[in-house]
Amino acid sequence: MKVLVDLCIVPIGVGVSLSPYIAACEKVLIDAGLKTALHSYGTDIEGEWDAVFAAVKRCHEVVHEMGVPRITTTIKLGTRTDRDQTMEDKVKSVREKM
Amino acid sequence: MKVLVDLCIVPIGVGVSLSPYIAACEKVLIDAGLKTALHSYGTDIEGEWDAVFAAVKRCHEVVHEMGVPRITTTIKLGTRTDRDQTMEDKVKSVREKM
Amino acid sequence: MKVLVDLCIVPIGVGVSLSPYIAACEKVLIDAGLKTALHSYGTDIEGEWDAVFAAVKRCHEVVHEMGVPRITTTIKLGTRTDRDQTMEDKVKSVREKM
Amino acid sequence: MKVLVDLCIVPIGVGVSLSPYIAACEKVLIDAGLKTALHSYGTDIEGEWDAVFAAVKRCHEVVHEMGVPRITTTIKLGTRTDRDQTMEDKVKSVREKM
Repeated sequence: MKVLVDLCIVPIGVGVSLSPYIAACEKVLIDAGLKTALHSYGTDIEGEWDAVFAAVKRCHEVVHEMGVPRITTTIKLGTRTDRDQTMEDKVKSVREKM
Repeated sequence: MKVLVDLCIVPIGVGVSLSPYIAACEKVLIDAGLKTALHSYGTDIEGEWDAVFAAVKRCHEVVHEMGVPRITTTIKLGTRTDRDQTMEDKVKSVREKM
Repeated sequence: MKVLVDLCIVPIGVGVSLSPYIAACEKVLIDAGLKTALHSYGTDIEGEWDAVFAAVKRCHEVVHEMGVPRITTTIKLGTRTDRDQTMEDKVKSVREKM
Repeated sequence: MKVLVDLCIVPIGVGVSLSPYIAACEKVLIDAGLKTALHSYGTDIEGEWDAVFAAVKRCHEVVHEMGVPRITTTIKLGTRTDRDQTMEDKVKSVREKM
């Protein structure tokens, strides 16, 4: 089952500068071979369900290993059985109608 | 790694009545032996990471098997290494300060 | 336009104990006369759009006034024109099908 | 108060093709003079709180006027008092650390 995900990981208890932790998560996602697109409020990810969620779990583990005591994460995720749709398809489909 | 989750599954393409699908997901979560609390805009879940996300995946599979062609889901999830905290602890902690 | 909201406010940069800030937000929502239900990963709110979002803005202002330099918030919100539906209706509708 | 938002509007009850409605919302946001960036699972928005949330409300109104009986929306939003930060700053800050 393929899934499109928007992942937003928020480290808590380490001050207001969060980008080092987000950068570490980007590395986890890329090392996992996932297709990703960083945006201003998260990272869009495309891949097989198990690979994507194994990487999300690894992100939490890595961020905790960096000394973060608490993490809150927001995920949006979509699956569909009617047709295959990439991250680019979704954006293109909206742009064509504007 | 223990996780607290707020799961909100939204079936798309089957009209406006979504409760049969949400009820099927509740059954999946309960059958998985997870601690859950249904609220007005999702279901709070407490459990081990792998058990929780296996159940979330099973929810998507079951809802698709019910004939839903597209699903969008929003998940909030929290992990912490500083201390153990239950769903009830979180609510109690806020209530004590009100 | 009536709206059902699930509000989850996360103060950043003030350590791992967030309940005093959540309690302050609960007070804002109650003072605004909104119908609310605190749960383990947020607060469900029912009310008119303008009243609800004025209160959400006030929550951010109050939390910043308490000394929090950064806030990230996740909101789920629903509107519908086909029928009136309360927070209780949604839960009841799922429970009846389980 | 400036706010960064990630807006994801999901029309319910009109089938699986949602891009016409998302395109209509993009138009609302652009007509409101807001800075936006469409991505695969939402639209990032930067602006003053009142202007942003007036536009979000207008999106719901416009989508309902297009015949959609039910909408569920997920919003992530951030405010900070310690410093000014644009949408581009956030991405750049992560990229520099990768």
